[in-house]
Parts: sequence; C-alpha cells; structure tokens
Amino acid sequence: MGIVPGVAMPRACGVGMIGLGTVGGAVAGLLLRHGEEIARRAGGSLVLRRVAVAHPGRPRAVALPDGVLVGDARAVIGDPGVDVVVEVMGGLEPARTYVTEALAAGKSVVTANKVLMAARGEELLAAAAAAGTDLFFEASVGGGIPVVKAIVESLAGNEIREIVGILNGTTNYILTRMARDGMGFGEALVAAQRQGFAESDPTDDIDGHDAAAKLAILATVAFGARVVDEDVYREGISRITARDIAYARELGYAVKLLAVARQSDGGIEARVHPALLPADHPLAAVNEEFNAIMIEGDPVGPVVLEGRGAGGGPTASAVVGDIVDAARNRWRGACGRLAWGGAVRRPVLEIEEIVVPYCAFLEVADRPGVFARVAAAFGDEAVSIASIVQKSRGETADVVLLTHEAREAAMQRVLRRLRALDVVAAIHAVLRIAG
Amino acid sequence: MGIVPGVAMPRACGVGMIGLGTVGGAVAGLLLRHGEEIARRAGGSLVLRRVAVAHPGRPRAVALPDGVLVGDARAVIGDPGVDVVVEVMGGLEPARTYVTEALAAGKSVVTANKVLMAARGEELLAAAAAAGTDLFFEASVGGGIPVVKAIVESLAGNEIREIVGILNGTTNYILTRMARDGMGFGEALVAAQRQGFAESDPTDDIDGHDAAAKLAILATVAFGARVVDEDVYREGISRITARDIAYARELGYAVKLLAVARQSDGGIEARVHPALLPADHPLAAVNEEFNAIMIEGDPVGPVVLEGRGAGGGPTASAVVGDIVDAARNRWRGACGRLAWGGAVRRPVLEIEEIVVPYCAFLEVADRPGVFARVAAAFGDEAVSIASIVQKSRGETADVVLLTHEAREAAMQRVLRRLRALDVVAAIHAVLRIAG
Repeated sequence: MGIVPGVAMPRACGVGMIGLGTVGGAVAGLLLRHGEEIARRAGGSLVLRRVAVAHPGRPRAVALPDGVLVGDARAVIGDPGVDVVVEVMGGLEPARTYVTEALAAGKSVVTANKVLMAARGEELLAAAAAAGTDLFFEASVGGGIPVVKAIVESLAGNEIREIVGILNGTTNYILTRMARDGMGFGEALVAAQRQGFAESDPTDDIDGHDAAAKLAILATVAFGARVVDEDVYREGISRITARDIAYARELGYAVKLLAVARQSDGGIEARVHPALLPADHPLAAVNEEFNAIMIEGDPVGPVVLEGRGAGGGPTASAVVGDIVDAARNRWRGACGRLAWGGAVRRPVLEIEEIVVPYCAFLEVADRPGVFARVAAAFGDEAVSIASIVQKSRGETADVVLLTHEAREAAMQRVLRRLRALDVVAAIHAVLRIAG
Repeated sequence: MGIVPGVAMPRACGVGMIGLGTVGGAVAGLLLRHGEEIARRAGGSLVLRRVAVAHPGRPRAVALPDGVLVGDARAVIGDPGVDVVVEVMGGLEPARTYVTEALAAGKSVVTANKVLMAARGEELLAAAAAAGTDLFFEASVGGGIPVVKAIVESLAGNEIREIVGILNGTTNYILTRMARDGMGFGEALVAAQRQGFAESDPTDDIDGHDAAAKLAILATVAFGARVVDEDVYREGISRITARDIAYARELGYAVKLLAVARQSDGGIEARVHPALLPADHPLAAVNEEFNAIMIEGDPVGPVVLEGRGAGGGPTASAVVGDIVDAARNRWRGACGRLAWGGAVRRPVLEIEEIVVPYCAFLEVADRPGVFARVAAAFGDEAVSIASIVQKSRGETADVVLLTHEAREAAMQRVLRRLRALDVVAAIHAVLRIAG
C-alpha cells in the first residue's frame, strides 16, 4: 500500500519545521535525500518549505534549498504553503505556544517532544480536536518504535491492562555494561557518555524523569486517562551496584529500569524504578541502548515492540511516519480522523498502594539468631518470605531476600524495622520484581 | 485518541461477517461484549448486522441477536446496512469471489485470510483502489502483532531492507519443546497437537507453507514488489533432530524456522527454512507458540514486533483494529486513504543465488585422513570453513562444520561432493545461519 510507481503525483504536502538539531537535521535529510521513494510510499510528495532556527546564518550539516531557513517560528506557522508543522525544538516553552498557535491556524502538527506531551498532552489534543486537525507524537516515546500507533489504532479493539517498558536507552546501556562487564555505576556512565548514549548532564535519564514522561504519554493513550509526568512515581538507578546485579543474576533475574503503567482496582499505577525481571521475560534480554515496550491487552495477550529508542535516524523515522499520516489525512480531507474526545478521570495510585513481590539485598551480622530477627521484621508486617540466599563475608553476611506479593506500605514498614535492628549493617537495595 | 467518554455518538458502522469459526466467533464475541468500550475508543459504534454461515440453524458458542445469522454470503455483501465486510472463512475460493464482489459494491473489506492475500493480494488491492474503498488484512500475518500497519504507515519514511520472522506458531512450539525437553520431532508434534497448537493434519505448518504465505504478504507491502506464496523458497522442519538442536546450542545458536525477505542486488530474496540464530539475536529467545518479526529499515534500524501469532483472541484483536480503521475512514469519507498504486516489478531470486554462512551436521568415519578429504570438498568449491567441532562416537564421528558466507549454488556442489565420499556416513542437516 502506498506504492504508486510511475504515476503522476499532483498531490503535495508542505512541511515546515521548528528546530534543526539532531532530530530535525535527520528529518530534513530524509525528506531531501529520499523524497521520491517516500512520495511513492505516501501517495504524494512531502515538500520541506520552511525551517525555523535561532541562527539562520550558521553553517548546517544538512544543505537546505535557498530560502527555507528562517529565524522565526512564526514564519513557519504563518506560511500558507506549510500544511504540517513539525516541532523538534524540545522543551516546554516556547514549544507549547508554537504548537498551540499552529493547531489554531489549522495546521497539522507532528511533535517529537516528550516533555511537552507528558505535561500538556491532553490540553494540546483537545486543541487539535477543537480545530479539527491532527496532532501526532509517535516520536515522543521509544524513538522509531511504532508504539503510539499500535495502541491507538491496531489495538483499538483491546482493553489495555498493563504496559511495561524499558523507555530510556541511557540507563539500559549503563545497566547492560554493569551486568556484562561488572562495571560500577560511575564507570558505566562514563562509558555511556563516551558512546554518545548519555548527555554530559545525565540527570534526566539517570533519575527516571525521561522514562516517566514517556510512560505518562503511553498511559494517557492506552487507558484513556489523564496521566502527566508528575503523577509518575520515580526511582533512578544511581544506587544500583554491580554486586546487586550479580546477585540478581544468580537468582535468575536481570535488573532493568522499568516503566510500569497498570489498570488496577482502585485506579492507575504509574511508576518508574529499577526492578528484577525473570531471565525468560521478553524484556530481560533487551540490552545496550535499545528500548522495548510490552503491552498486555485483552484479547490480544502480550505484544512486545522493540527498537532503538533514541538517535536522529530512528526518531526521524517516527516523525516522517507521522508526517505521512498527517499528509494522507489532509489529502483526503480527513484531519481529526482519530477523534480525541478527552480523558477519563481515574485516580493515579500512590506508590504505597501497589502490590508486588520484592527483593531485598541486606548485609547483616554473621552470627546465630540474626536470621530469626530479620525474618521477624517481615513476619510482623505479614510480608511473606519466598526465599533467602545467604553468603558469609566474614564479620557480616550478604542476605538476599525474596518476598511473595506484598503491599508497598507494608514493605516500607518492614524496612523501617530492619533499619532499627543493630544486626542489620546495611540495606543495599530493595527492588520490586516484575513479570 | 479515540476516547470519547460520555459523549453522544451518532456515528455507527454496520459490520457484516462471512464465516463464524474460531476467529469469527472471537470477533463477534468482542463486538458484542465490549461494544461500548470499543465505541469509546473508535469514536463511533460498530454494529454487527449480518453473519453468513453454512448452517444457520446449528447451535453456536456465541449468542447473536435474532436475524443476524444468514445462510448466504451474498445476503451479507448485498445488505445496504453493512458497511464493512469481514471475511474470516479462509481458503482461496469462494473467499476471493466474495471479497471481490464486496469491494465492487463499495464495501470496506477486512480479511484474516493469508492464503487469499498471499496468492491474490495484488489483484484485490487493485480492485479496492479501483472501487475507492479499503482492503485491510492485518490479521493475515502474525495474529495480533500489528506488523502490516507498522510497515505501511509507521515506517513509511524507511527503505525496508530486510524482514526476518518467526511466522508460524506450530513449528516454533515444536522446536521449543525439542530444544527445551530434548523431544524428537514426532513427540513434539504430538505435544503441539495436544496443546491445540497444531492441526490434526499439520502439513501446511510443518513444511513451511503457512509461513511462506505470510512472508509473501509482508514482502509485498514492505518492498512494494509483487511476491506471491509460490515465489517463496521452502524447507520444513521435519528433518530436524534433537541432536542437531543440541549441537547448535553448544555452538551458541538456536534453531528456528525463519522466514526471510531481503532486498538484494539482483532482486528479492524470499525464503522459509530452518536456520541457526546466534543466542543473542532478538528472535532467538522467541519461544513456545509466539511469533515475532524483525524489520530492518533505513533510517530506523532494527524494529522487533512480538506476540501471539494465532488463536481466536489475538486474531480478533487484529480484525477489530482493522474494522475500526475502516470505520474511521468511512465516517470521514476517506476510504482508500492508504493509496495502493500497484507493485514494482523486481525479480524474486532463485535459492541458488543467495549468499549466507552455513552449518553442516555430518557423520564421518572416525579415522585418520577423513578430515582432510571433507575439508577438500569445501575448498574445491571455494567455500571457506569458519570452524569445525568433532565428537567421536566410536566407529564414526559427528562433525559440525560452520562456513563463512558462500553462495548457495557452491554449497550445493559441496554437498554433492560430500555425498560421493565413502568416508561420509551421513549428512544429517545443513542449515543456513542468520543474523
């Protein structure tokens, strides 16, 4: 479909872009270098008419035709030859203002901006619906992985029950190096920076902010509920040690930074934290900088989508896919074809309300009676222990404790009890277990 | 998107179905039981108006409203209240006739029929284009995995270079049991039949016909080329032994029935055969009855989609996704939104022209000088040996030989030479290596 070889194609769609960084440059390059092939697949041509940058005079990696570069986003939004506005500048403002203005002007908008969609997605989708136009944002989650379209279109017959994702390539690369090469967190971070998989300030990735924004977007489209980035509970990976990972592996688990959104009885769970995954879980073998999302739907069962979650090429693939979608709608007078009617109000649960199994990595005094006291801390809170592994280190012993499912609030009380025990030398990590 | 809570929805789409087997029953059940939720997501309701079956009087697992069941497919196609015709009867005829008539009548058509699409897909897509309507067929490949939409829409900006898939759940289940439990082929087949993953006559699955049909469909949409099931080279899995699989594992490989379609210099490769996959390949850990497809695109890189490839629920998910797509187009007057303009003519290569590394499992006489003679058979055809593993079994020795990349024609000549050597007791299997 979408292949029109050797046929005259009178249809064209004017594309304007705001921003020309890594993603914008890749999008422009793709449209300019592969325009004919894309036109064959799309059923009409995509013409890059305007690109707004802060400094139009500066030299660029991609050679744009004369007159395309402008210094003002409004020159893109206001150009009557621009049908689709592509926002790849990132950040909340002025991106929000530009997108809002473009929608109000009846333009179709394609954005790769996760910060914007996670914070203001609902407002912007409502603005698009009010203007009778399209807002597409596939590139805001999972780079080139077609997850938004899968949820909104392919799985429209399903009730989505759960989404479990590895949504941040930087942290997945770091955890992969720690697991595979025994690196410490700091060393693996430096390796990620050298490979270009981590920014010089990697805070947003390491502390789970990036994954939380993406999860908020997925939860919104999957559950039809309003979930913003600030609703998502977050724990980062900076406290994970190579020793935790090695112990987890001995027990048959991988350690991943998971993003979990789940429909549960009282509301919606939305959380990003390091977690143990059984070695045979579909996400356990997703390594390096790759992202993957497992969607559990009824009646489809589990569907897993995997690919490169960042970088110019994969993100440009998603942006151009969205531009083609927008163009096809404009050519057929079908903008707003995927009606957005607003979100259902379901509460997002506090982390204390979730129920999962846990794994605790402790260091305890290596002498008789200690075990009984540690076990009592769990028993007193009715948290049931599933298995215990102990390794003597001389004065102390490493203890790895796996629990059955327990309410987070109860587990937090167990930890307070453990901290108060003089025989517990350290609580290295407490990880939730997925799958 | 597609969520319209508490809003009056005047839009309805009449659905007619031909066939009420496993898939049809699941589709009807989904539309009847979850109609309201699907309507919220779709932006309008899907109303099941007519279902044609051979014996309307027979008792059914799904309770349909009075008057819905009819005995004649033409009563579905000709009903003015039916907007979308869902063909889930399977087989080439009369399905082809019914689909053709429905398209000519301006109905949108959704089919789950791989046999039909693999043999006549191009003709039917052209008929849909001529009638200005839609033909959707997501359910014909990979059950609930949204692979057709991913290729045609999400990845429209990419040049698809290669598709590697595990497209048949029956054979994947059999190979999984052979690998995991050491079963022989026959024993694993019986286990698959007991689990309901294999038909009583499993020929179409075992010999690769089913996977070949699905690969033809994917190659057609991915490459914009005409590839029909008969173009696909096929080898089945019935000659694979548990011993081959055990040896492969020792060498770090899994054995899978792979479907490979690739753009190569002289044309298109399209082949289904058992193959060795490196243990860290994304498809190597796809087990049981699951299907998965790896799409290699430029610029997206590798994208892997995994899920249940068969069964009522997953297939119904894909069918209903397509019905929603068709309904959204009808509501917006945008049928034929994904223009099909015909296929590019690129030749499908003969198997002798492909170039891959090989793995040969031989049994040879266990005495001096044998190795040199075996190696010479490779050397004389300029097929370069990458590694050799030998295990004595007394009189004979098992030899596993891995080659560097070689042309299939050369490898076939090597095999003829080996068969002519008196020191070669048996050639157990020769498998292509992927990844």
